[in-house]
Amino acid sequence: MTDLAAVKRALAAQRIETPSWAFGNSGTRFKVFAQEGVPRTPEEKIADAAVVHRFTGVAPTVALHIPWDKVDDYRALGEYAKSEGVAIGAINTNVFQDNDYKLGSVTNPDAGIRRKATDHLLEAIDIMDQTGSRDLKLWFSDGINYPGQDDLRLRQDRLHAALQEAYDRLGDDQRFLLEYKLFEPAFYATDIPDWGTSYAHCVELGEKATVCIDTGHHAPGTNIEFIVAFLLRQGKLGAFDFNSRFYADDDLMAGAADPFQLFRIMYEIVRGGALDPSYGINFMLDQCHNIEAKIPAIIRSVLNIQEATAKALLVDRDALFQAQAEGDVLEANAVLMDAYNTDVRPILAEVRADAGLDPDPVRAYKASGYQEKIVAERVGGEQAGWGA
Amino acid sequence: MTDLAAVKRALAAQRIETPSWAFGNSGTRFKVFAQEGVPRTPEEKIADAAVVHRFTGVAPTVALHIPWDKVDDYRALGEYAKSEGVAIGAINTNVFQDNDYKLGSVTNPDAGIRRKATDHLLEAIDIMDQTGSRDLKLWFSDGINYPGQDDLRLRQDRLHAALQEAYDRLGDDQRFLLEYKLFEPAFYATDIPDWGTSYAHCVELGEKATVCIDTGHHAPGTNIEFIVAFLLRQGKLGAFDFNSRFYADDDLMAGAADPFQLFRIMYEIVRGGALDPSYGINFMLDQCHNIEAKIPAIIRSVLNIQEATAKALLVDRDALFQAQAEGDVLEANAVLMDAYNTDVRPILAEVRADAGLDPDPVRAYKASGYQEKIVAERVGGEQAGWGA
Amino acid sequence: MTDLAAVKRALAAQRIETPSWAFGNSGTRFKVFAQEGVPRTPEEKIADAAVVHRFTGVAPTVALHIPWDKVDDYRALGEYAKSEGVAIGAINTNVFQDNDYKLGSVTNPDAGIRRKATDHLLEAIDIMDQTGSRDLKLWFSDGINYPGQDDLRLRQDRLHAALQEAYDRLGDDQRFLLEYKLFEPAFYATDIPDWGTSYAHCVELGEKATVCIDTGHHAPGTNIEFIVAFLLRQGKLGAFDFNSRFYADDDLMAGAADPFQLFRIMYEIVRGGALDPSYGINFMLDQCHNIEAKIPAIIRSVLNIQEATAKALLVDRDALFQAQAEGDVLEANAVLMDAYNTDVRPILAEVRADAGLDPDPVRAYKASGYQEKIVAERVGGEQAGWGA
Amino acid sequence: MTDLAAVKRALAAQRIETPSWAFGNSGTRFKVFAQEGVPRTPEEKIADAAVVHRFTGVAPTVALHIPWDKVDDYRALGEYAKSEGVAIGAINTNVFQDNDYKLGSVTNPDAGIRRKATDHLLEAIDIMDQTGSRDLKLWFSDGINYPGQDDLRLRQDRLHAALQEAYDRLGDDQRFLLEYKLFEPAFYATDIPDWGTSYAHCVELGEKATVCIDTGHHAPGTNIEFIVAFLLRQGKLGAFDFNSRFYADDDLMAGAADPFQLFRIMYEIVRGGALDPSYGINFMLDQCHNIEAKIPAIIRSVLNIQEATAKALLVDRDALFQAQAEGDVLEANAVLMDAYNTDVRPILAEVRADAGLDPDPVRAYKASGYQEKIVAERVGGEQAGWGA
Repeated sequence: MTDLAAVKRALAAQRIETPSWAFGNSGTRFKVFAQEGVPRTPEEKIADAAVVHRFTGVAPTVALHIPWDKVDDYRALGEYAKSEGVAIGAINTNVFQDNDYKLGSVTNPDAGIRRKATDHLLEAIDIMDQTGSRDLKLWFSDGINYPGQDDLRLRQDRLHAALQEAYDRLGDDQRFLLEYKLFEPAFYATDIPDWGTSYAHCVELGEKATVCIDTGHHAPGTNIEFIVAFLLRQGKLGAFDFNSRFYADDDLMAGAADPFQLFRIMYEIVRGGALDPSYGINFMLDQCHNIEAKIPAIIRSVLNIQEATAKALLVDRDALFQAQAEGDVLEANAVLMDAYNTDVRPILAEVRADAGLDPDPVRAYKASGYQEKIVAERVGGEQAGWGA
Repeated sequence: MTDLAAVKRALAAQRIETPSWAFGNSGTRFKVFAQEGVPRTPEEKIADAAVVHRFTGVAPTVALHIPWDKVDDYRALGEYAKSEGVAIGAINTNVFQDNDYKLGSVTNPDAGIRRKATDHLLEAIDIMDQTGSRDLKLWFSDGINYPGQDDLRLRQDRLHAALQEAYDRLGDDQRFLLEYKLFEPAFYATDIPDWGTSYAHCVELGEKATVCIDTGHHAPGTNIEFIVAFLLRQGKLGAFDFNSRFYADDDLMAGAADPFQLFRIMYEIVRGGALDPSYGINFMLDQCHNIEAKIPAIIRSVLNIQEATAKALLVDRDALFQAQAEGDVLEANAVLMDAYNTDVRPILAEVRADAGLDPDPVRAYKASGYQEKIVAERVGGEQAGWGA
Repeated sequence: MTDLAAVKRALAAQRIETPSWAFGNSGTRFKVFAQEGVPRTPEEKIADAAVVHRFTGVAPTVALHIPWDKVDDYRALGEYAKSEGVAIGAINTNVFQDNDYKLGSVTNPDAGIRRKATDHLLEAIDIMDQTGSRDLKLWFSDGINYPGQDDLRLRQDRLHAALQEAYDRLGDDQRFLLEYKLFEPAFYATDIPDWGTSYAHCVELGEKATVCIDTGHHAPGTNIEFIVAFLLRQGKLGAFDFNSRFYADDDLMAGAADPFQLFRIMYEIVRGGALDPSYGINFMLDQCHNIEAKIPAIIRSVLNIQEATAKALLVDRDALFQAQAEGDVLEANAVLMDAYNTDVRPILAEVRADAGLDPDPVRAYKASGYQEKIVAERVGGEQAGWGA
Repeated sequence: MTDLAAVKRALAAQRIETPSWAFGNSGTRFKVFAQEGVPRTPEEKIADAAVVHRFTGVAPTVALHIPWDKVDDYRALGEYAKSEGVAIGAINTNVFQDNDYKLGSVTNPDAGIRRKATDHLLEAIDIMDQTGSRDLKLWFSDGINYPGQDDLRLRQDRLHAALQEAYDRLGDDQRFLLEYKLFEPAFYATDIPDWGTSYAHCVELGEKATVCIDTGHHAPGTNIEFIVAFLLRQGKLGAFDFNSRFYADDDLMAGAADPFQLFRIMYEIVRGGALDPSYGINFMLDQCHNIEAKIPAIIRSVLNIQEATAKALLVDRDALFQAQAEGDVLEANAVLMDAYNTDVRPILAEVRADAGLDPDPVRAYKASGYQEKIVAERVGGEQAGWGA
């Protein structure tokens, strides 16, 4: 039998990190659709992230993207965040938006460009020292578009060298979250295309290097929850970038495309004892939804993850393990589906009410007038980020 | 036995259309890498296309993209093209780069936006009247990102209405090339996602509507040459957009990712008697390669298509049909592979020499000094198109 | 607002056809795992199907597979079915399990084998005359394994000829359900690989030819509900073969792999007014689950379809259409998801109770002793079908 | 410049291992098509393998499959092989064709079945001691069909335990080749689904455990040559199972579906210095082509690999590395393609002539009368293997 009080406690303790860049404009290669009221400065992004936390109660940190969120004084930025009720989370590097990186950053055939890219990684760790961030998220767009364009193996050597240099610079309480991605923007070979590559590099680097799973970065048909279970077994799962996709890296709202998959992922987290913040996994959103309003879309994503988590917590694990041990395929599947088919919105409404929050965060946000306020106030200026 | 003289005649008669936009900058959603010397005006794009024709001898037309290639006087533009040794080919519509089209163009829930988009289609036909173009290429980025976002069926009704209105406006010698695409920029449902949808609309519209196959627009595992063979049988294949891909719509150089697939496609064309320009298929390039130099990449794409075609022409069809009729799986496959495994570059060199061209167009282009000239001359100005 | 009484009436009226072959042993190419108690004769399969109907109340017909279910007297078989409380549904042809069909059946290069295969189609219609079946389901495994093995276009001509001959033999109240499948057992090109091919043939044949969608037969990433919506618009959707898959044609229990997709499919059915049996769509199961007990797996599949249907019926369509018309992406998606996230099991329990059934069919089946009975009684004998 | 004599030496030294089971009947789940003259005993399979070596000169070893090739006296079998001019190669385990393995072998929830499966692994090593085989190939079909069916993590623990026990039993000159596969026969989660999982287990086990790449076992879009390059860098690539596929694990003739991919794979082998037998990679065929004659299909597969290898050896690596270092995307790609586009059949004909072989092995096999001989002689009897 499931202990409902324990489920509620776990849900109340859950933490989801929001990404500063998801509050700004974004788009596809065909068009970036600008929205009214989007933030123009790191402070405005943090303010929006704080609003998400205010209405959900589970999103107290916001990840920054360098240089999009570059400021002169990171301690002051941290103070600002604190005043808004949130804290600065992971620092994300960006070595893909400079003309120099056309053929790669840390794996570029040009040693000077590799130096520049590696220096950016070191700079990001300097920033972490100031923000007090634990996590450095590393995503490299590096790869090649054509067979023969560059040497696959030399690029791994270059990658390792840059990672090692940055790793050696990490402080005692800092770590890597090393992302992988099948393709895009590289169209033939990506230098870290799959979890295996990220894992092998992390093992070589040491215990401060962990794998980050972006749920949109896999080949069609990949069983993501298997990767979750496997990395937990190996002690190498550091973070998630949640979003959802039907085709490629669509970067839609988490839980929108395949809520059953999200549930299966969260079940492995719960089963592996890795939900609690003390375990150390950073559950981040990483989305670039282009056509819907930013803040309510992020709120919706948080709710979707919460609902998947609630269902995962409701799985009757005693019954499940018993059916599994007996080889009762239908019963084991039925136990899992019983939790999935449960409507968990009432439970989450109670968790929110217990925390003094409105049980319906979307409705509360709409009623708050915040959207109208930012549309009115944020006129002029320019975004650092995806442009438009 | 293959008649080598006939093969050479067929190769000399082959025609490939280049796209004006492929000469300009392009990129992914992450970054558009600007190149030196890229054209800033429709005239400069046409000049570059003319260079491709000058060195290959088989690319005498260039497709335009409206509004990227909008000019006041299309007859004058046509005269300019003629003076450069080429002609204006297909007119491409663009109903995806305006803020109004965030939720769709001709399938938008808003009737006013649908009107605007449909008017653009009509305007493109007006332009065709001036350029003397036969082909109107229609690609709609229309679709939705989330289940429920809009009604799948109503969008088809709206699509049909717009297509019908434009179809009725076509002149006697004008026709539709109706493109389809699995996804991107729409991430859940695209309004014309596959050849079946395009085909069904074309059948409803009438004989002036034909399907355009973009080789990068299919689900993983799709057998494109089957679609070619099937549409030829139905008399509904109007055009190709050639490019290549490993993952999604990567828009790499034609023939770069899967030269064997390109050969199989061209074999179906040859076998269906559809290679000769008199058959009416428009063999276009449609590429957006981001990191390599534009003109030599397009020359290379033309050569790749020529090589695939030469191999297809070399297939010993008598031997093939006999092995097929006898159910000799290994021999039939061997006959096809025998042609594929042949090095056809010497034959093509002869075809070029016979036409008074340099047998090696890439080398000839490099030696011509054209690249240095445009880098020196084309300074300042701005591109209409993908930006940067 | 949703009319709950109308929802219940629609659920009570829903009809799902079970396949005789799914009650027998099945497997992969690696192994067929035999189960105890599986039926050995058409009558035993019908008896099992009748049990599924007895406990679910919505599965009153059973599809036959010829020659697996060949009997001397089909009228007697129909009488037997009637005595068990069910009726014979669609007749399925089998032109893939004879040595002659190694290189194809109706598309075989050998005219004699084509004749034999076509005769089998005609024989199946003769059987329909005796069973009173309306539907002839046609699945052709025909295709080729290697490029060049056979001529893609000639195979279409042969396919058309066979279909036309069988079509002309159809009685006034009989029709075709023409299936398509991406691959397997053909590994390079399948003769009807996608809905477009099936649709084009059906249009050529006439109104008695309709498309059958097998939910496991698509390329990765295919949006099946789009095909549903499109075929409904064209009036050419005749049937479903429900099952589920993670990778290829896995033939798992319907609704097991992607319950959200099944919901989206059923929503298009409901939205298109095509749920009621009077519309004419044959909602069939077509599964070959290998490792779990047969009858409870089929009951579970029926329940999964019922649950997806209940959720689809619960969609607040007024609210949905309004949000769609207003371009409110988040709200439109939220309205759809609100229905999906509802736990519909209580509603279905009421529908069953109203019909005098046990509200929990799986539990009721387990309690019935039927499984123990067939295990005890069905000893010896041999199956026609998948073997083992 | 390429040293042609060195290329020929490398081609003459190349070794490809054939699989005993590929000479027997095989099929899909729909049908196993029996062929005349297929071998009925391990000796007959070895005889056929010896014929492949006789005509190609590069296939001197044959892999066995236990229990399909079980004999009382393996030393005698080895003597027989020797008398035919070949030797016994890798030993393949089979823990998927027993009813006990329905829910898994070494990962089965039942400890007794795990014991049985592990004992089979140990037995295979006993056989290796007798045959003198270096390589134990491990493929586990283990996995689950439904979410919840079994615990993903416990299955890894069980897998590790069995692997460790067998690993500890390996002799000094023996090693593991640990295969991975995305799916089939498991349809939801496979216990070793990708190279990362195999790699991680191999690293845990030690240096005698290496990864085996089956070219048909990946998710759509996977870049296999990247995996080759990466595993070579890590020193963990032990073997290939060559075959080809368009969709899933189609098991077609190597090089038939994507000859360009095979070339890219062989280029990484050549570039990594891993072609020579002394490096230790076992280049095996693992195919189950169902419709074409067995022996000539295997000869054809060997030729396809030889041709891909010859092209890989012809790559002008100095020119390639220079273009790569200079970031000349087009030139680097052109250098690689120049080798690919070369017709290498004349070179291979010379290599064969130099070795005293017929330059055209397929023609020589046809002329040899062997096929007619085995059809006449091999009447009656039964195969162990895929059945039929």
